[in-house]
Amino acid sequence: MEINELKYRKTIRKYSNRDISEKLLNELFEVACHASTTGNMQLYSVVVTRDVEKKVALSPAHFNQKMVKSAPVILTFCADFNRFIKWCEFRSAKPEYGNFQSFLTALFDTVIFAQQFCTAAESEGLGICYLGTTTYNPDPIIDILKLPKMVIPVLTVTLGYPDENPQMVDRLPLCGIIHNEYYREYSRNDIDNIYKYKEGLPENHKFIEENDKATLAQVFTDVRYTKDNNEFFSKTFLDTLKRQGFNF
Amino acid sequence: MEINELKYRKTIRKYSNRDISEKLLNELFEVACHASTTGNMQLYSVVVTRDVEKKVALSPAHFNQKMVKSAPVILTFCADFNRFIKWCEFRSAKPEYGNFQSFLTALFDTVIFAQQFCTAAESEGLGICYLGTTTYNPDPIIDILKLPKMVIPVLTVTLGYPDENPQMVDRLPLCGIIHNEYYREYSRNDIDNIYKYKEGLPENHKFIEENDKATLAQVFTDVRYTKDNNEFFSKTFLDTLKRQGFNF
Repeated sequence: MEINELKYRKTIRKYSNRDISEKLLNELFEVACHASTTGNMQLYSVVVTRDVEKKVALSPAHFNQKMVKSAPVILTFCADFNRFIKWCEFRSAKPEYGNFQSFLTALFDTVIFAQQFCTAAESEGLGICYLGTTTYNPDPIIDILKLPKMVIPVLTVTLGYPDENPQMVDRLPLCGIIHNEYYREYSRNDIDNIYKYKEGLPENHKFIEENDKATLAQVFTDVRYTKDNNEFFSKTFLDTLKRQGFNF
Repeated sequence: MEINELKYRKTIRKYSNRDISEKLLNELFEVACHASTTGNMQLYSVVVTRDVEKKVALSPAHFNQKMVKSAPVILTFCADFNRFIKWCEFRSAKPEYGNFQSFLTALFDTVIFAQQFCTAAESEGLGICYLGTTTYNPDPIIDILKLPKMVIPVLTVTLGYPDENPQMVDRLPLCGIIHNEYYREYSRNDIDNIYKYKEGLPENHKFIEENDKATLAQVFTDVRYTKDNNEFFSKTFLDTLKRQGFNF
């Protein structure tokens, strides 16, 4: 495997009309299944959406991001304890997995599986985009995909052959992320250095201007990820988890 | 990229003495950074452990799994809102990220980054093993690695050149995991079919016998992932999250 392919990957939001065969899709799932999973429990399921009406129905849950309707395939990756619990019940075992650690375990399994799927897909020339909106509006997604108790939608991926070739997106310098032996707390000078390149990018200056803010950080706190939204969507998702059988 | 490499990957628990250069390690982190991240916030940090004393100190937190002391490198992947919050504070922005959704966002970023790192490492001939114990015993890990508030250890990976060539591990058939258009609830017959191969494996028969149980499912519910442990470790981790600044 060529790691430069991983290094130069890009998120793709615009897809061609070319369809994705079921054979290829299944091969990618098969590959992704071999990623690590806790105790080999495979606490995940995926719902594949190809039907146009279903995409239209899912779209508002993802704030009408255009990829939901334009991508040939939408994948909803779900943390799934339902299948495992059913297995336990049919085998005279007493499952008790409605707790926080079990939810986390299923979450880790699901995200690792989703990411391995994305890498496999990209290696076959497909483009992907994660939608973080899945945990904001879980209830309509649960309804549309008929998810039973103990199944939680956690990540959505839009998938298709690329019809764009966007620029590489900046990342923080490694020194801002890696700590040797123990965590070095960041000084003001460290933060200045770590964020210097990002803050210097013309597109980010434009971003600040368009949002009428003084700093890029304010675009994040006041516009993109606000206190009110975070708290509202936290409550929504905790309520949903409870209703689906995870109570903490 | 050759997807068969992903398909035939294996978790490696036994490592040779060969060291991992800092140059290679940094290249792998650099590559992994280009995996998807929410709003390009990169809400993660990694602490690299090479020091023998630090490994000895971390070992009990991972229930003394032998890889912690025998692997040349231990990586603790942390959900990190500390760096982002410091940046906001130094830029006249008001960060409010101690909520559940923000924790989830950082968790997704961290797991995606960790998994992409593992794939990059495997593509360079290294072997990896995830330790799910990280969220069971977060407090000693936080102490040893000096993690500040808003930084949570979520996954640990042991890393080294393989000194074993284990058999491929079984996975459930795809039909047990993939749902087209909506989730089909599993019948008893479905569950029988999905788990048939796993339940027929000689190593699982041995597993049942060794644990003096009647079914494989009982080994999971009564021995490996018990109600008492799940609930105890749920409380521990929720308490830790609160102490580290995430309150929900």
